[in-house]
Amino acid sequence: MAKINPNYKKLPQTYLFSEIARKTKAFSEANSGVEILRLGIGNTTLELVPEVIKGLKRAVEKLANVRTYSGYGDEQGDIRLRSELVNWYKKSGVALNEQEIFISDGAKPDAANISSIFDQKSIVAIADPVYPVYLDANIIGGKKIIFLEADEKNNFIPKPPKQKVDLIFLCSPNNPTGAVANKKDLLQFVNYAIKQKSVIIFDAAYSEYITDNSLPKSIYQIPGAKKCAVELQSFSKSAGFTGVRLGWTVVPKQLVVEGKGDVNRTWNRRQTTMFNGASNIAQEGGFAILSSKGRKQTLKQVRYYMENAKLIKKGLESIGLKVTGGENAPYLWVKCPKGLTSWQFFDKLLTQAHVVSTPGVGFGKMGEGYLRFSSFGHRENVMKAVESIKKYLKL
Amino acid sequence: MAKINPNYKKLPQTYLFSEIARKTKAFSEANSGVEILRLGIGNTTLELVPEVIKGLKRAVEKLANVRTYSGYGDEQGDIRLRSELVNWYKKSGVALNEQEIFISDGAKPDAANISSIFDQKSIVAIADPVYPVYLDANIIGGKKIIFLEADEKNNFIPKPPKQKVDLIFLCSPNNPTGAVANKKDLLQFVNYAIKQKSVIIFDAAYSEYITDNSLPKSIYQIPGAKKCAVELQSFSKSAGFTGVRLGWTVVPKQLVVEGKGDVNRTWNRRQTTMFNGASNIAQEGGFAILSSKGRKQTLKQVRYYMENAKLIKKGLESIGLKVTGGENAPYLWVKCPKGLTSWQFFDKLLTQAHVVSTPGVGFGKMGEGYLRFSSFGHRENVMKAVESIKKYLKL
Repeated sequence: MAKINPNYKKLPQTYLFSEIARKTKAFSEANSGVEILRLGIGNTTLELVPEVIKGLKRAVEKLANVRTYSGYGDEQGDIRLRSELVNWYKKSGVALNEQEIFISDGAKPDAANISSIFDQKSIVAIADPVYPVYLDANIIGGKKIIFLEADEKNNFIPKPPKQKVDLIFLCSPNNPTGAVANKKDLLQFVNYAIKQKSVIIFDAAYSEYITDNSLPKSIYQIPGAKKCAVELQSFSKSAGFTGVRLGWTVVPKQLVVEGKGDVNRTWNRRQTTMFNGASNIAQEGGFAILSSKGRKQTLKQVRYYMENAKLIKKGLESIGLKVTGGENAPYLWVKCPKGLTSWQFFDKLLTQAHVVSTPGVGFGKMGEGYLRFSSFGHRENVMKAVESIKKYLKL
Repeated sequence: MAKINPNYKKLPQTYLFSEIARKTKAFSEANSGVEILRLGIGNTTLELVPEVIKGLKRAVEKLANVRTYSGYGDEQGDIRLRSELVNWYKKSGVALNEQEIFISDGAKPDAANISSIFDQKSIVAIADPVYPVYLDANIIGGKKIIFLEADEKNNFIPKPPKQKVDLIFLCSPNNPTGAVANKKDLLQFVNYAIKQKSVIIFDAAYSEYITDNSLPKSIYQIPGAKKCAVELQSFSKSAGFTGVRLGWTVVPKQLVVEGKGDVNRTWNRRQTTMFNGASNIAQEGGFAILSSKGRKQTLKQVRYYMENAKLIKKGLESIGLKVTGGENAPYLWVKCPKGLTSWQFFDKLLTQAHVVSTPGVGFGKMGEGYLRFSSFGHRENVMKAVESIKKYLKL
């Protein structure tokens, strides 16, 4: 008699974004003709840049011709793309080799799957608030979880745990707070991990939004990190690949848990067994992103979104709201005024200003009393939303 | 202190295809100038058909324009594609709805991940010989495994287990044997599963190679199957999408383990948490495959590979080898002559005829004494390989 994995019953019943969608839909249906202004979901809105389109078309053309057609590629990803990523890291002073990079269909699946290569009895430390996938995937995997609280007092950057843990999930620039760990912050985690022989899973999917050059874009800019950290990365937010699906995970050979190169070898075994490579079309697109033209064009889009962030920040601050983030990250973290809960302020913004945001409490209990604003969106809509908040929101 | 998931240590050390690659490389290096003829790996070789190329280009063009650009789609897949699949099943007399179909990046990841939604203490029955992913993924997942033996005596179609099991993995048309279960065979499994409340995972990735219309292409053609079976499918072999990556999994709502619609709901939770949708470009390609022009063009390619299968079968039989499969499947299952083991006959074929095959023992102990031949390849190469075997192989 088959049974469902009982861990699924431990998951929260509703998912943050479906609840937002439900509330938005209900409001919209009850107020027909009202334009809903969305600053909620972190979904890219700009078209792909010309150089990347060229790359994608080249990939399709290759598949159209029997002489250049290719089927299965390496599960670890096209070696040319991995080589380009080695060069990309080199520019940040990080030396890696191709066997330490695993191309994937995005950071989300890798973030969700990485824990499965470690002992089920692992104790996992997860920041709060944070992207819900780390928590959910570790609940499904039957891991024991502790939270690393992040709030105003520590500038929304958690500190290493006091107790012993086996795995630590960090996300910087952070989703949802937009806070970015500096080198000293990360060094504390690296030192902790080396001492406790724990492994840091560092989600750097938003690194291209860092404008302050003193802030680390990769955990491998921190001495010792190769011995204790896995890094997740993605083309989703830096190049608009949210729908095209392409990312990668770095597992250094120096990262040892029980014996020489074992984490790298186990992830390799996991991926060759349970994954079959990212789409070859997407990979050709990734190759184009990393070209000098591709980089120039995609970074321009990142700056566009960061301009949005500035406009939102300025607008919200002008009416007295307290806003952090949005300077080295596409997310703004807004404190709910007058002790409102996240959902109360969410409702107020929706019903008064017709603006959809994301309740901070959806990212963990420490997110209660905050909203996340996303800077992904068309300038015109962002401005409309900001104006609507300034005009109609009654604080 | 982090530890590696101990189940990884239970996996076989070497992977079938890497061992083949190693042997082939060693022979090639020791015999420079010799042309290696490959009938080993099941990798498509024909270019994508014009209609699909058009679809892929349309997808890229959409992404190039800010008005038609799209980011994240539904994790379950584009609703238009799911609707087309509902129509596709309807033609085989199978009624499904869109919420029962989950688009993925291929059948391999789904085959590897599906067990994780069931209790870790599940007992899993896996055919032997079979595609290694089911076994490896269930070992990694810590499941208890029993084997359903398939050999000459049962025409390489396993029978339901004598003992109680919770999950059953079946693959028909089978990889590696090329055997296809008929309706009676499958009905036995469905009856068993309903009686024992077990779940069948039915891998139908090669269904388009079935030419005999009396053979079931979907397990849902068997009465009762919706109550007990999940079906895995793929565009890899039917449309050359091995590198583009697109497949789907059917989880009927009628399939109940503990309560109404629970398997469907749990797989939905798994996919929305741990997956982020297949590439939107690939999905537009999938949509084109299912159009009437797309179907006509891709089925022509399937016939091309099946012609290869006929040529291989005829050639091998002409020198007295015993061959099954290859009539409703792209794989041929060849009995090693004179009691040779799989690897002995593999070596003989490689060194004497320079032909690469796949040792049957790599698919399980019941595969010992067999080789798998794949009909994926260019006609010219297939013919060259067959001629080389006829001319140089000393039996």
